[in-house]
Amino acid sequence: MYFEMQYRVPYGDTDKMGVVYYANYLEYFERGRTEMMRHAGMSYAEMEKAGFMLPVSEAYCKYIRSAKYDDLLTFRSWVSSYSRVKFTICTEVRRNDELLASGHVVLGCVDVNTFKVTRMPQQVADFCAKCALEEEK
Amino acid sequence: MYFEMQYRVPYGDTDKMGVVYYANYLEYFERGRTEMMRHAGMSYAEMEKAGFMLPVSEAYCKYIRSAKYDDLLTFRSWVSSYSRVKFTICTEVRRNDELLASGHVVLGCVDVNTFKVTRMPQQVADFCAKCALEEEK
Amino acid sequence: MYFEMQYRVPYGDTDKMGVVYYANYLEYFERGRTEMMRHAGMSYAEMEKAGFMLPVSEAYCKYIRSAKYDDLLTFRSWVSSYSRVKFTICTEVRRNDELLASGHVVLGCVDVNTFKVTRMPQQVADFCAKCALEEEK
Amino acid sequence: MYFEMQYRVPYGDTDKMGVVYYANYLEYFERGRTEMMRHAGMSYAEMEKAGFMLPVSEAYCKYIRSAKYDDLLTFRSWVSSYSRVKFTICTEVRRNDELLASGHVVLGCVDVNTFKVTRMPQQVADFCAKCALEEEK
Repeated sequence: MYFEMQYRVPYGDTDKMGVVYYANYLEYFERGRTEMMRHAGMSYAEMEKAGFMLPVSEAYCKYIRSAKYDDLLTFRSWVSSYSRVKFTICTEVRRNDELLASGHVVLGCVDVNTFKVTRMPQQVADFCAKCALEEEK
Repeated sequence: MYFEMQYRVPYGDTDKMGVVYYANYLEYFERGRTEMMRHAGMSYAEMEKAGFMLPVSEAYCKYIRSAKYDDLLTFRSWVSSYSRVKFTICTEVRRNDELLASGHVVLGCVDVNTFKVTRMPQQVADFCAKCALEEEK
Repeated sequence: MYFEMQYRVPYGDTDKMGVVYYANYLEYFERGRTEMMRHAGMSYAEMEKAGFMLPVSEAYCKYIRSAKYDDLLTFRSWVSSYSRVKFTICTEVRRNDELLASGHVVLGCVDVNTFKVTRMPQQVADFCAKCALEEEK
Repeated sequence: MYFEMQYRVPYGDTDKMGVVYYANYLEYFERGRTEMMRHAGMSYAEMEKAGFMLPVSEAYCKYIRSAKYDDLLTFRSWVSSYSRVKFTICTEVRRNDELLASGHVVLGCVDVNTFKVTRMPQQVADFCAKCALEEEK
C-alpha cells in the first residue's frame, strides 16, 4: 500500500540551474511521509505531544531527472521495513509518469525528554503495519 | 557604530532567475544581527537559556541589485532605535561598494515560558546602547 | 476581490522557538501570489518564457501571532495597487479566523534578457485589474 | 587529503526539535565541497561559465548526533572516488571532536547547454586527483 500527495514547485525551491535544489527533495520526503501518517490516522504533531519523536537517522536520494518550477509533482510514499525501534519510509517524486527522484529515510523512535531510543508506541507500530509494502521479518 | 560580517552565497540560496531568492535576505539579516550581538558580548543562545526570546514582529527589505552565486557579501548591521520592550536592527547587504539590499527588523522581548512581552533584560539594553547609531527618544 | 489557498506547515518550516521561522513567510507570500496568478489565468512560468520577469523590489511583513507545525494555514492575496511598471500584492496568513501575519511585496516588470525595467505586458495588466481591491489612479 | 571549513548554525537552520533540520545537512555538504574546490584552485562558478555543470546524482547522510543553534561546526570534505564522468565527495559534520553526521554526494559532469553527461574537463580531473583520499581504479 502506498500513499500519494501532490505538490506544486514554488520559485524558492529552484536554484540557478533552473531546477529544484537537491536538498529540497528531503523536504519533499518529509511532506510525503507526514501526509501518509495523517492519512493512516496518525498525527505526527499529536505523537510529539504524547512524548515521542521520530528523528531521521539516515537519508538517501537518487536524482534521476530534474523537477522544475511550477511542476505539479506527486510524492508517493510507503513503509519499506520496520522493527520495534525504527522504520524505513521510501518516497518517489514523480511528474505524471516520469520518476524524477527516489529515496528513503530511516526514522528512529526517541523519548521527547531523554532523547533516548525507545520502543515505538502502538500507534506507530500500527501505522507501519498498515503502510508497509514489504514487512521486515 | 555598525558591525560587519562576510558571507559566501551558496548554490542553494539562488533561484532560477540566477540570483539570491528574496526570502533568503531575511536569513542574511538574522546572520548579521546574531554576529553583531556576539561581537557586542551578548550570546543570543545564552539569552534564551536565561529565559528571554527576541521574536521578530516586523521585517522589511528593499531589493536594489541582485546578489549572485558565489558572491562574497558583507552584512552591515546596527541598532537604529530601541525602547524598553523592543528594538530595531537595520542591515545592509553589500558586495564591495555596491548596496544590494537594505532593510530592518523589529525585535520584541518575550518571556520564554509565557510568550508575553516583557521588559528587556539589562544585557539586551546594554547591547542596544552599544550598537545604536541613533537613539530613540 | 481576493484569492485564498491553503498550506500545511511542514516540520522544516519551524525553528527551535517551535514556530514558523520568520523568513518562511516570504515564501508563503510567493505561494499565495503564484496561485492567485494561476487562478486569474496567468501562469508565471509562461510569462517568463514570454520574456518577462517580476522580481521583488520590496517586501514587508508584520508578525502578529505564530504559525505552528502542522497548522493548516490560509494565504489570502490581492493586488492593492499597480502602475504600468510595477504592482503591489498584499498577503495575509491566517489560521481559521486568526490573522497570524500580514504583508506585501512590490513586484516590478523586467525584460528577461536585459534585466531592464519594462512596461508590463497586457496579460499582467489584465491580472492586476482583475485582482485589485483598490485601483491606483 | 581533506579540506575543512567552519560554519556557525543560524536560527533558521533549526526546527522545533531544537536541532538542525535534516535537509540542511545537504546544504552543509554543498558549502563544504564548494570551499574545497575553491581551495584546490577550482571555482565552481567559473566552471559553469566554461560550460560545465556538476549536478548531484545521489546523496546520502547518516545522522549521528544533533547539531544545535549557534554551534560552530566543521565540515570536512574529500574526494573518495572518481572516474571520467563522475566523482564522489564525502563530508563529515563535526563539532570539535564529535562526529555529528557523515555522508556523501555523487556528482556527474554535464554540458550546460545539452544537459548531457560529458567527460569532465581537465580542471575537474585535476581537482579530483588532488583531493582524493582513495583513488578509483
